[in-house]
This record gives sequence, structure tokens and C-alpha cells, in this order.
Amino acid sequence: MAGEKSSGNENVVFVGKKGTMSYVLAVVTQMNQGANEVMLKARGKAISRAVDVAEIVKNKFVTDTKINDIKIATEEITTDEGNLLKVSAIEIQLLK
Amino acid sequence: MAGEKSSGNENVVFVGKKGTMSYVLAVVTQMNQGANEVMLKARGKAISRAVDVAEIVKNKFVTDTKINDIKIATEEITTDEGNLLKVSAIEIQLLK
Repeated sequence: MAGEKSSGNENVVFVGKKGTMSYVLAVVTQMNQGANEVMLKARGKAISRAVDVAEIVKNKFVTDTKINDIKIATEEITTDEGNLLKVSAIEIQLLK
Repeated sequence: MAGEKSSGNENVVFVGKKGTMSYVLAVVTQMNQGANEVMLKARGKAISRAVDVAEIVKNKFVTDTKINDIKIATEEITTDEGNLLKVSAIEIQLLK
């Protein structure tokens, strides 16, 4: 098992401001390296992109992917000025 | 039961481009009128807003709201020019 990552448990892809396909590639790569589970996480406006990533992976690349669980929550962020900001977050669990 | 909507089953709020609080108000109003279930639906970039709406309803207005089920899917839209466009969609089921 040399060179294998701790496959299965915590393969997280944080979805941010890059193009959707960068994150699709990150998920597909992890799955091809043996991960059976990939967790997509996103906050704020990137939430829509995380949903796009999950759908594109499932429909175009790894068609036996299951969207196992979706959770939403509110997270608190401290801004540079020290203000507390509440932002929505999503977690999408993909299983192969 | 005069004046009561078919409460319970299909109270859908479509989240689009308006301000988040308009949709929060729509959900809270439906719940105050007796709905035990409200379904939030959104597509594309409005998905993030739908998550915001669910979180704000739950954390600030109807605190016994449960986010019961979240589904994502891909929908096909025909544009005015006749092109087929794929867009991600979300459904968030809120229970009181």
C-alpha cells in the first residue's frame, strides 16, 4: 500500500472561487487514487459551485458516484476588521 | 377549516434573484398559516441563497424548524435561442 493516501475517511475538497472544473478534477483525481469517499465543502456563494461539482462528477466522470449526504450549516467568520460574520456552508458527501 | 391552504404537502418557495429576506418572509408566512412542511427550490446561482434562507428561518425565526432532506439534481432548460442548458438545482425540505 505504499504511496496510498489514507483512503476512505477524510478526503476533503474545499470549493472556492476557482473554475468549477478545477474542483471536478480534484475530486476525480482523489477517486482515481483510491478514495471511496470525497467530501465537498463550500461557503457563501461557492455553495452553488459545490453543487455543480457534485453533479458534474456524478453525471460525466464517475458515474457510479452516489451523493450520500448533504448538510448545511451556519459558520461564523471573523473578518480582518474583527467583525463577526455569519455565512452559510454546505457539505456534500460523495461515495464511489 | 375555511381559508386554510392545503397545508402540509406542497408548499413550495422558489428562490430566485430577489433579496434573501423576501424568501425568508415567504417561508415564515407559510409556516404561520399552518404549513408543517415548506420546500425550498432553487437553481444555479440562487442555490446559495436557498441555503441562506433555510439557515435564517431555522436560526432566527422558526427555531424548531428541521432541515429534513436536501436533494440536488441537474435540470435541463431550453434557452430563448433553443439551446439546451444544464443547470444544477437544489431542494431543501423544511419541517416544523
